[in-house]
Amino acid sequence: VAVSTLGEAMLRLSPPSGERLRECGELRVHVAGAEANVAVALASVGVATRWTSALPDTPLGRRVADSLSSAGVALDTVRWMPDERLGLYFAEIGSAPRPTSVVYDRTGTAFWSLSADDLDWDAVCDAEIIHLTGITAAVAPGSDALVLRAAREGRARGATVAYDVNYRSRLSSAETAASFAVELAPYIDLLICRAEDARDLFGLAGDPPTLANDLAKKFGIGRVVVTSGADGAVAWWEGDSVSAPALPTVGVDRIGAGDAFAAGVLWGLLDGSPGDALSRGTAMASLAMSVHGDQCRFTAEEVLEVARGAGREVRR
Amino acid sequence: VAVSTLGEAMLRLSPPSGERLRECGELRVHVAGAEANVAVALASVGVATRWTSALPDTPLGRRVADSLSSAGVALDTVRWMPDERLGLYFAEIGSAPRPTSVVYDRTGTAFWSLSADDLDWDAVCDAEIIHLTGITAAVAPGSDALVLRAAREGRARGATVAYDVNYRSRLSSAETAASFAVELAPYIDLLICRAEDARDLFGLAGDPPTLANDLAKKFGIGRVVVTSGADGAVAWWEGDSVSAPALPTVGVDRIGAGDAFAAGVLWGLLDGSPGDALSRGTAMASLAMSVHGDQCRFTAEEVLEVARGAGREVRR
Amino acid sequence: VAVSTLGEAMLRLSPPSGERLRECGELRVHVAGAEANVAVALASVGVATRWTSALPDTPLGRRVADSLSSAGVALDTVRWMPDERLGLYFAEIGSAPRPTSVVYDRTGTAFWSLSADDLDWDAVCDAEIIHLTGITAAVAPGSDALVLRAAREGRARGATVAYDVNYRSRLSSAETAASFAVELAPYIDLLICRAEDARDLFGLAGDPPTLANDLAKKFGIGRVVVTSGADGAVAWWEGDSVSAPALPTVGVDRIGAGDAFAAGVLWGLLDGSPGDALSRGTAMASLAMSVHGDQCRFTAEEVLEVARGAGREVRR
Amino acid sequence: VAVSTLGEAMLRLSPPSGERLRECGELRVHVAGAEANVAVALASVGVATRWTSALPDTPLGRRVADSLSSAGVALDTVRWMPDERLGLYFAEIGSAPRPTSVVYDRTGTAFWSLSADDLDWDAVCDAEIIHLTGITAAVAPGSDALVLRAAREGRARGATVAYDVNYRSRLSSAETAASFAVELAPYIDLLICRAEDARDLFGLAGDPPTLANDLAKKFGIGRVVVTSGADGAVAWWEGDSVSAPALPTVGVDRIGAGDAFAAGVLWGLLDGSPGDALSRGTAMASLAMSVHGDQCRFTAEEVLEVARGAGREVRR
Amino acid sequence: VAVSTLGEAMLRLSPPSGERLRECGELRVHVAGAEANVAVALASVGVATRWTSALPDTPLGRRVADSLSSAGVALDTVRWMPDERLGLYFAEIGSAPRPTSVVYDRTGTAFWSLSADDLDWDAVCDAEIIHLTGITAAVAPGSDALVLRAAREGRARGATVAYDVNYRSRLSSAETAASFAVELAPYIDLLICRAEDARDLFGLAGDPPTLANDLAKKFGIGRVVVTSGADGAVAWWEGDSVSAPALPTVGVDRIGAGDAFAAGVLWGLLDGSPGDALSRGTAMASLAMSVHGDQCRFTAEEVLEVARGAGREVRR
Amino acid sequence: VAVSTLGEAMLRLSPPSGERLRECGELRVHVAGAEANVAVALASVGVATRWTSALPDTPLGRRVADSLSSAGVALDTVRWMPDERLGLYFAEIGSAPRPTSVVYDRTGTAFWSLSADDLDWDAVCDAEIIHLTGITAAVAPGSDALVLRAAREGRARGATVAYDVNYRSRLSSAETAASFAVELAPYIDLLICRAEDARDLFGLAGDPPTLANDLAKKFGIGRVVVTSGADGAVAWWEGDSVSAPALPTVGVDRIGAGDAFAAGVLWGLLDGSPGDALSRGTAMASLAMSVHGDQCRFTAEEVLEVARGAGREVRR
Ligand SMILES: [Ca+2]
Ligand SMILES: [Ca+2]
Ligand SMILES: [Ca+2]
Ligand SMILES: [Ca+2]
Ligand SMILES: [Ca+2]
Ligand SMILES: [Ca+2]
Ligand SMILES: [Ca+2]
Ligand SMILES: [Ca+2]
Ligand SMILES: [Ca+2]
Ligand SMILES: [Ca+2]
Ligand SMILES: [Ca+2]
Ligand SMILES: [Ca+2]
Ligand code: NI
Ligand code: NI
Ligand code: NI
Ligand code: NI
Ligand code: NI
Ligand code: NI
Ligand code: NI
Ligand code: NI
Ligand code: NI
Ligand code: NI
Ligand code: NI
Ligand code: NI
Ligand code: NI
Ligand code: NI
Ligand code: NI
Ligand code: NI
Ligand code: NI
Ligand code: NI
Repeated sequence: VAVSTLGEAMLRLSPPSGERLRECGELRVHVAGAEANVAVALASVGVATRWTSALPDTPLGRRVADSLSSAGVALDTVRWMPDERLGLYFAEIGSAPRPTSVVYDRTGTAFWSLSADDLDWDAVCDAEIIHLTGITAAVAPGSDALVLRAAREGRARGATVAYDVNYRSRLSSAETAASFAVELAPYIDLLICRAEDARDLFGLAGDPPTLANDLAKKFGIGRVVVTSGADGAVAWWEGDSVSAPALPTVGVDRIGAGDAFAAGVLWGLLDGSPGDALSRGTAMASLAMSVHGDQCRFTAEEVLEVARGAGREVRR
Repeated sequence: VAVSTLGEAMLRLSPPSGERLRECGELRVHVAGAEANVAVALASVGVATRWTSALPDTPLGRRVADSLSSAGVALDTVRWMPDERLGLYFAEIGSAPRPTSVVYDRTGTAFWSLSADDLDWDAVCDAEIIHLTGITAAVAPGSDALVLRAAREGRARGATVAYDVNYRSRLSSAETAASFAVELAPYIDLLICRAEDARDLFGLAGDPPTLANDLAKKFGIGRVVVTSGADGAVAWWEGDSVSAPALPTVGVDRIGAGDAFAAGVLWGLLDGSPGDALSRGTAMASLAMSVHGDQCRFTAEEVLEVARGAGREVRR
Repeated sequence: VAVSTLGEAMLRLSPPSGERLRECGELRVHVAGAEANVAVALASVGVATRWTSALPDTPLGRRVADSLSSAGVALDTVRWMPDERLGLYFAEIGSAPRPTSVVYDRTGTAFWSLSADDLDWDAVCDAEIIHLTGITAAVAPGSDALVLRAAREGRARGATVAYDVNYRSRLSSAETAASFAVELAPYIDLLICRAEDARDLFGLAGDPPTLANDLAKKFGIGRVVVTSGADGAVAWWEGDSVSAPALPTVGVDRIGAGDAFAAGVLWGLLDGSPGDALSRGTAMASLAMSVHGDQCRFTAEEVLEVARGAGREVRR
Repeated sequence: VAVSTLGEAMLRLSPPSGERLRECGELRVHVAGAEANVAVALASVGVATRWTSALPDTPLGRRVADSLSSAGVALDTVRWMPDERLGLYFAEIGSAPRPTSVVYDRTGTAFWSLSADDLDWDAVCDAEIIHLTGITAAVAPGSDALVLRAAREGRARGATVAYDVNYRSRLSSAETAASFAVELAPYIDLLICRAEDARDLFGLAGDPPTLANDLAKKFGIGRVVVTSGADGAVAWWEGDSVSAPALPTVGVDRIGAGDAFAAGVLWGLLDGSPGDALSRGTAMASLAMSVHGDQCRFTAEEVLEVARGAGREVRR
Repeated sequence: VAVSTLGEAMLRLSPPSGERLRECGELRVHVAGAEANVAVALASVGVATRWTSALPDTPLGRRVADSLSSAGVALDTVRWMPDERLGLYFAEIGSAPRPTSVVYDRTGTAFWSLSADDLDWDAVCDAEIIHLTGITAAVAPGSDALVLRAAREGRARGATVAYDVNYRSRLSSAETAASFAVELAPYIDLLICRAEDARDLFGLAGDPPTLANDLAKKFGIGRVVVTSGADGAVAWWEGDSVSAPALPTVGVDRIGAGDAFAAGVLWGLLDGSPGDALSRGTAMASLAMSVHGDQCRFTAEEVLEVARGAGREVRR
Repeated sequence: VAVSTLGEAMLRLSPPSGERLRECGELRVHVAGAEANVAVALASVGVATRWTSALPDTPLGRRVADSLSSAGVALDTVRWMPDERLGLYFAEIGSAPRPTSVVYDRTGTAFWSLSADDLDWDAVCDAEIIHLTGITAAVAPGSDALVLRAAREGRARGATVAYDVNYRSRLSSAETAASFAVELAPYIDLLICRAEDARDLFGLAGDPPTLANDLAKKFGIGRVVVTSGADGAVAWWEGDSVSAPALPTVGVDRIGAGDAFAAGVLWGLLDGSPGDALSRGTAMASLAMSVHGDQCRFTAEEVLEVARGAGREVRR
């Protein structure tokens, strides 16, 4: 495959628009998980992708696999666990000033029982890019070791290692997240980091281009992408500065935008210029915000049309 | 309890978003009614509240009680009526330039048969605040007497009497509403009035602070709150001028905002400053607009976070 | 009747808001078709209208007729075809930057088998206005002849002939559409054309008033209306220039706006001034955008209130 | 028209299957009313039908008219009333042993304000058959006079007068219903009566053929149809006994079956044998039970296929 | 209160009818839990009831409380836990031969952290009857001690102790369940046991009356009720044999029937004969099966009408 | 793969239960097609399966592929066609006596443009079993040649050729279907035929075992399976008679049962006895009837439990 990634998947359960978690009669079901989202987005544009994880052998775990399979993601390295639970999260999509609020239910899941030694690293790392995130490092006791191992195994086999900091305050402290990034840095070829995380975790300051430059210097990483929501994305890319604006979006459901952005960057890394990486990233992020759920299932043609700004409002 | 209120409740029946009342296949059901909304909003933030009314002893009437009970509102003074109908209203939520339009169906209801002598006024008025509205005064033949009696009974027992003018052109003429307010004024400790109503009913003019001041003088009321939608709220509060801006809101369903505002003001009256009263009011109003239905079911923590402006868009 | 129109109807199948055609669990069903939309909009405001078409004698074809009948459109000239299929289109309503995208499924339908000689032209043309569109000319092999015949038959009986260019790139080339318009021009009394189509089909340039004037001159037509979306509409109307701004709209579902606009213009042509024609057109267009589906079912009172700008946000 | 009928229409509001009225999040909307159901069923099989009533000029009243128009029922004699309410009923469809339970909300409706002198009886009675029911006689104060007048006016113009006893304990006492039937009897040409009503209202006994015979003798009516649910229907028809079994049905929603039965009998009366009348009646009754709502919208071909017992389970 | 009970509550998440857990787009939400179901059913018929548990202080935990409050259950002894998860279960309602299948997700919940010493036993046991179940004994590590303590505390205060064996193979082995019952037996005044559990756990044999008698003898319990699904229920009641048939039901959703049965028995124990206890139990069980979800929310009047067999299919 | 099959896929669009195609507000979407259903059912129990077809390169065609991919069916031989339409069918699921009725919309589809020479027969036939049906032979002009070619290519490579007669009166005459079967017979190793088709197409008579025997003799086929709905299935299997009863089912949606049966037989052919083939077939058929849609997505464990009759109604 071109990209291999590893992490936990969950079901996301959401009330219909305008309804509250505490009262709604039904919950919409979507498959979620940062790396799974990246994998689905990449496979949807035609990039061969593998996703590794541990799933319970229940209808819920099987549902996760069905969803990823329907997008074409390879799942041969997934470990099936009897008698475990699947991670869940409940997401009430907000409407200003009501915030989107999330109830995580990710303790004691099948993924917690996955140890680095369970995996066939040759299979997992048989890829041009290994994509990892800070969520996986923080999600379970000892899962930081899993991410570190994956980075090392990938590096050892000559893969490009990408890392999305993706800090979640509900999963770890900023200090823990920062020190893990420091530990992982020597193995990282491409770093993706929100401007906010660059400030909160690493004590940096300044505008996004400065942050990208400083992160590159601080960690000695050749390619650093810094995102700042509606302000778009910038990169320090092997000595060049690149940037792409965010696209105007209506924002049906903002969850999943960061993962879609990462997918666009990885896709550009595989077959485009640094500018392509950013513009595909912002196009995919905005498309992810235009649909319910965490996934971004758009074809290459659909993404590129948006990236080019060529879309008309109605096509008929 | 801390707050006692009295009025009619209804079922509100609404088409799904973007559909019309004349065509839609289904109607969403919500419990509504100005004072019931205030009671639910107050109970949801933890203020002990009682609501008094007349309800038919049918699944529809019981449904109203279930809804208020689930929020923790005390219902021991409600009168159950066999063989009566429940008030209803049909509300098609608009989308500019299509207005939100309402078909009232409130004639001949159980509440029409409620007379002041049916009530145990000791129980109804056992509260720090008695909250009343102009809707109740206008909704049924003779219901103005009920509101006047409640204000008198409350005053006699030392409760603070709050009155929300809440003019509805479908229920009475502006003249009737104005002259009732004049009659009730001697018993009112806190007046809530839309700027628009101050102008249309009482012939006042000027900006909201002027209106508040003039209402206070005209009626000899110590605390007067004037609301003006997107322009926020101002108060003349025992000689001081206070104000709070409206919060930016997306406005899923604007109905219920006025009642939620009143609840925030009463909550602030119980345990906060005049500024707290207004900022809780505008926070609760904007939260009410962010959800379907007329009710505002948010915890104190949720409201205060919005009132402080501390919310982030996604919490995870 | 006052207005008679002729064209194909379809079922439109749409995912719920925020869902994709490729994934959604259910499709909402709406009856559609440019002239059928015009007929429904006119009948809804009280204008007697007839619609002529060919429909399959299946539950799907019957459904189209039920929908138009419920609005009061006369269907006595519709031809019922056994063993034919109904046209369909799948419309995923977008959310910026995701475009609204349409999958047409209009080949080999019952309408394709309708020939001009099948129709009773006395019945079809018994009207003050005959309304035709470029969609019908392009939708089936030989259907241009049908439109031409209708214009001729109408003209011969003294009816006013209206033509909405309504270009669809999925149905014909710009050249074909332009040359058909040239052929039809001698029979046209009122031309409706998007500014974009005036440029793309007829090689005109300039602002909308210029386009209207140039179209009038080029084709020798007395009344020409040019629309330009959010910029509103202008007309060259027997030597006078008229214009109307677009109304601010939230835009739940923009499909159907053009047909609703045409209906408003025809209604104004029947009993109002040129200015009325444009302002009813823009009011109906914006109302059509405020509801799901392609149809615009508003009463005359509702439309005129919006056209006057008199609506308040909530009516109660 | 062939059949003219007169009565009140309502909206029926029902929870989804398996849900309770006291709790459900949404209510499904169906247009209902005994005579309106008969009119829709007849128009659906192709019998020209008129329905006369009073409707409020609101979106709710308009919805009733749209529904009947879509089936092709003529509504030119309907009186439109401003400022009135539409009748409603809430129907929770049961599931043994939970009964289907109904909350009527039919007091003070537009129909209550309809007086016999409001109607153009020439138009109302311009039909081969006038169909009336005991529900209309009982539904409003003085509406018995309306039914009596309709029967007299019909008789005077040579129409066949049909009467469906259709007793509702929630609308009148058995005594009142019985004495009204006695008063109306001289004008009745075709009587339809449930076996249960024959016993409870008229004190008759015996099996259905006996009941039909005794009703015919008691009232001096030439054609009497007696229904007994799962036991089918029998008729005393100008001296002959006829019968038809009920069809096996699954019973999705049994409401509306009686009205559909009456429509089948009237259809048979117009163009078939007495046996056709009963078998069309039982076929239409069973089809009505197979769909949600009170209406029976099946084509003549669909009904006759079921009446012949020729249907296969899947048609493809 | 009259009845006090203690146990875990969960959210039950179920696909729509005919859909599978592995594929469905949405999950219906119902509050569940054996003792919570009993409490809701009792409060719904008017019996004062308290329910004790531990709930997470999240929207999910609050939802459980809202649901029970709306039925009138007292919740003052519930312990609110920050940072814990709520138990869940996913239930796909089957359709023969597809079984109803359940995915439990009840590990590590707030209830697991509840210890006997956390509770105010005076408050918990201030009741005529303490109701306990085998599910609670099995659901968490050490929760058997909680049940034992509750029985002892109840007995010490003179309450009647009821115990529903309610064996769940997914929670414990038959041996564990049986030996716990033996340990609890000296404190039990009323035992409820499925015939199947009597055989599988306690090695008994014979028909239900024999099983009831043998259980009474084996455990020295004065009142023993044995249920056997469609065969109804029997009791050994202070030396007398009593029985009640099951009612014919359509079985929309069979889950919750056992809990509803127990509620009926407890209600009968409070104010009726042993025969009443069983017939209320079977009526409530069959009503529970006629609605979605685990709860049985019927009024006393509704239950007694079914218990008397007096219901007619449609009430109008 | 173990099984390779070839045919057209469609979207099936169905109203919700109890609603009619002519009126329903929404249509549920399911992927359908006889051979695609067989492929999904086989892949779901773990049999490696390939499906070959022509699909339009639109969101509708991609949706078909996503659905099959999610079950694990190999699609590498599918031909993607630009500018073609996908087959559709509208299925209103009946409720006695209302029949399930189908509106086919399968003319002019992408599959019509597939010719035998387009396919890589080495890839298509790389399987132990080639499964074909009479639907494919009848669905398009010249598609009989495609089926014949597939049988020949399969036979030439040593695959077992299975053929399901699956007669559809809407697609061809009985004579055409029968003569095609005669032409194909020399290449068939396993024939599946409904008893009804054996009679109507081939003029045979007698009970199912006789029909199976006569078909085997008439066509010289070693294994012949005859199904007769609720009477189960019988086989003439290399000289032995085998049979399996149908399972009691509630029948939520009977469409797809025949295809699921065929899948069960093929699965048994691969790794079981003739008796296993039939009992897996009847188990899968009954499971298919217990879910909405045409597909049968059950795991091997779920099917075998039903085939063994071991299931309990609720599993918890
Ligand atoms: Ca994520
Ligand atoms: Ca999203
Ligand atoms: Ca209100
Ligand atoms: Ca609201
Ligand atoms: Ca159109
Ligand atoms: Ca629209
Ligand atoms: Ca009726
Ligand atoms: Ca029905
Ligand atoms: Ca339970
Ligand atoms: Ca249940
Ligand atoms: Ca099929
Ligand atoms: Ca099925
Ligand atoms: Ni969604
Ligand atoms: Ni979603
Ligand atoms: Ni979704
Ligand atoms: Ni809602
Ligand atoms: Ni709502
Ligand atoms: Ni709601
Ligand atoms: Ni819609
Ligand atoms: Ni729509
Ligand atoms: Ni719609
Ligand atoms: Ni319906
Ligand atoms: Ni319905
Ligand atoms: Ni439910
Ligand atoms: Ni439900
Ligand atoms: Ni429910
Ligand atoms: Ni389905
Ligand atoms: Ni489905
Ligand atoms: Ni379905
Ligand atoms: Ni489905």
